[in-house]
Amino acid sequence: MKEKAIILLSGGLDSTTCLALAASKNLECYTMSFDYGQKQKAELNMAKLNSEKYNAKRHFVVNLKSLGELGGSALTDANINIPEYRGDNEIPITYVPARNTVFLSYAFGFAEVVKARYIYIGASFVDYSGYPDCRPEFFEAYQNLINTSSKYVLEGNKLEIMTPLLYLSKAETIKLGIDLGVNYRNTVSCYDANSNGEACGKCDSCTLRKQGFKDANVEDPTNYR
Amino acid sequence: MKEKAIILLSGGLDSTTCLALAASKNLECYTMSFDYGQKQKAELNMAKLNSEKYNAKRHFVVNLKSLGELGGSALTDANINIPEYRGDNEIPITYVPARNTVFLSYAFGFAEVVKARYIYIGASFVDYSGYPDCRPEFFEAYQNLINTSSKYVLEGNKLEIMTPLLYLSKAETIKLGIDLGVNYRNTVSCYDANSNGEACGKCDSCTLRKQGFKDANVEDPTNYR
Repeated sequence: MKEKAIILLSGGLDSTTCLALAASKNLECYTMSFDYGQKQKAELNMAKLNSEKYNAKRHFVVNLKSLGELGGSALTDANINIPEYRGDNEIPITYVPARNTVFLSYAFGFAEVVKARYIYIGASFVDYSGYPDCRPEFFEAYQNLINTSSKYVLEGNKLEIMTPLLYLSKAETIKLGIDLGVNYRNTVSCYDANSNGEACGKCDSCTLRKQGFKDANVEDPTNYR
Repeated sequence: MKEKAIILLSGGLDSTTCLALAASKNLECYTMSFDYGQKQKAELNMAKLNSEKYNAKRHFVVNLKSLGELGGSALTDANINIPEYRGDNEIPITYVPARNTVFLSYAFGFAEVVKARYIYIGASFVDYSGYPDCRPEFFEAYQNLINTSSKYVLEGNKLEIMTPLLYLSKAETIKLGIDLGVNYRNTVSCYDANSNGEACGKCDSCTLRKQGFKDANVEDPTNYR
């Protein structure tokens, strides 16, 4: 029987590369996306499209609107504008409180239900926006949490958080994805994409992505508006 | 300015005692309940009632139906019956995958938004149902996760998980609550309460609660059907 993997799939460049990687390892893939009231839904459409392309056994879209209702982030609060890229070391206003913690918690629950061996998450510590929940120590702490609290693990099974992009630059991730046949035209990274999935080209996420294609010497297929 | 506390409030005996305790410490209380598709809603009504009684600044009810949709637990899956108390050491079928992990993740996010100092959770390691996410090592691992991943904490603030009932027996919790003026008639612990909040008297949770009143030498005010 194939081993199973949960893949956290936003529909962006990194998570789609993660999905392609897991699929290439002959794992049975279950993708998981979150509708947390983010302003743009284009990324959810791309998550669905790539789940089909990579033969995911199931694409689970979790309604997390309550997380958006908490407010406090430019990604979900209609009263806060998406800022342009600044390149300083501050934790930006686009940080959603406890977002990766909540995402992993659901993935963890889902992994117990389907008896998965792995949870893949496409976080990167290299070209990243400065979110504290993208750092290696966060994932170590989360793995420790799973080891102490999972019924499934305490019964003798293994459940491992996989962060294959953690130490890759954006350019390296893009090269990996190209090798795996990812079509980056069908991914949306922009924090402020419109309903057609067209990117702004100016936010943190667009800036890092654009530079990644440049550094990788790959033509940027992004659909800019 | 008063320090703030998030109280995870199911509407049961333990979480209501926690709320009364936090309120007695002159904290500004924010209560948080979860609608995760549990079969009975009576406990949510009691959570609302006690939030008002203890002057919570806000009672936040989070829609977590997606968690219920994951299935795998007798508390949320209509195809699995609630079992009667067995008293063995097995992790029971009423365990909801990653439930406390998800609950704490939301509380953590909410705490960052309102700038809370504490998160109160009424878990007990003494008279408990054997869930792995009620053990001390789980809360230590979760505190460690917060310390490594919270923007708010990394900026120099403190955010602490409080488990004041962790080493109390059910009888000790009841005595504490009585001293604090808790009316246990207005709490629902039963895993299988009906829509009027009437308890079955037979499940794990009813059995532990019933014994608690007996051991505490307090008349059991529970509304049995």
